[in-house]
Amino acid sequence: MSDRLPDSDLTRHRRLREQGSLDRADLDVILDAGFVCHLGVVIEGRPVVVPTVYGRDGRRLYLHGSVASRSLAGGGPVCVTVTHVDGLVLARSVFEHGVDYRSAMIHGVPRKVTDPDEKLAGLRRLTEHATPGQWSYARQPNRKELAATTLLVLSLDEASVKIRTGGPDDGDGPDAELGLWAGTLPLTSTWGTPVPDPALPPGIPVPDHIARREGAGQG
Amino acid sequence: MSDRLPDSDLTRHRRLREQGSLDRADLDVILDAGFVCHLGVVIEGRPVVVPTVYGRDGRRLYLHGSVASRSLAGGGPVCVTVTHVDGLVLARSVFEHGVDYRSAMIHGVPRKVTDPDEKLAGLRRLTEHATPGQWSYARQPNRKELAATTLLVLSLDEASVKIRTGGPDDGDGPDAELGLWAGTLPLTSTWGTPVPDPALPPGIPVPDHIARREGAGQG
Repeated sequence: MSDRLPDSDLTRHRRLREQGSLDRADLDVILDAGFVCHLGVVIEGRPVVVPTVYGRDGRRLYLHGSVASRSLAGGGPVCVTVTHVDGLVLARSVFEHGVDYRSAMIHGVPRKVTDPDEKLAGLRRLTEHATPGQWSYARQPNRKELAATTLLVLSLDEASVKIRTGGPDDGDGPDAELGLWAGTLPLTSTWGTPVPDPALPPGIPVPDHIARREGAGQG
Repeated sequence: MSDRLPDSDLTRHRRLREQGSLDRADLDVILDAGFVCHLGVVIEGRPVVVPTVYGRDGRRLYLHGSVASRSLAGGGPVCVTVTHVDGLVLARSVFEHGVDYRSAMIHGVPRKVTDPDEKLAGLRRLTEHATPGQWSYARQPNRKELAATTLLVLSLDEASVKIRTGGPDDGDGPDAELGLWAGTLPLTSTWGTPVPDPALPPGIPVPDHIARREGAGQG
């Protein structure tokens, strides 16, 4: 399979083509940096966008079904978008203001995972994507829990990426003469100190795979 | 007007009703804590979800048009979703894992703002929402820039809110006997140190309304 993303009609960047990337590695990095996507579906002709958890497995994306499942029973198309906001771009003119961000958009028709083995493997990927090390630490799903979980799988074949980095674009225009400050105000997401469940008895340590994330960036 | 959000078919919470809020103050707080939404539209029967910038003005939301404008020319319905991810909920069992988050979803048919005065006021709101103080600091849009900007306005009448806070729910069940650590791993967004545009001449200070955000939380 190609390392280039498809340049189809739906994924073509109309307005800001220079921000598009056709490199599949960019897609993987953006997806792997997050764990919550916005899943768009069409219900009775109207768009509905819900946040949900995902996990990437090679060129497939596993999605926690939940709210959107009703509309997906019919096998309709979805759009999954993952966005990381990296900062505000503060230019000399309001018109040139913008946002530094990395965003991935995936189109396709997801399949409901029904085979128990595939569902277990998919939930493992979803869990490990958000919290590496947690699948083997926590109690894994039993048959009843597995049946009660809706899991979708979506191909990453039709995907596109948009990235904006760096400062404002009006540093070499007439507005540079205004003498105004311009630059970026970065925004970062960071994992904090683990908060124990109040119901937890004393003496149970935070496992290392969770403790070591404190202070690390996310996104 | 009511301070309660409507309990319509589209905004009713089917799966996790306990997480819903019908308090309009919750909606305002969630919207005001962010500046990037996911805008869902339907294009040729397929959902398309794009990130874009917004600003709240009372019970209206201004949206930067850009990519989605093509489909919106026809006056179709949109869904705007704003989500803040507050942390991972790490339970004893994989099945009880989840995410602490605050999310707002707005349905409606946006109107394209064409009146120059209204557009200027809307862009002011959009700018001030993301960066308070920036509208009067930066150069405001001229007539040509105003014409080149697509701005949409959407009523907040049909909106819903979902919030999940706190730790896992399996502290009082049989899994508590497993002796596993359980709790939350918080995730926070923070504004960083302003980065000057490399094209900026020396001696221009970071304005106070930007400098003072450093270290402050976002979301």
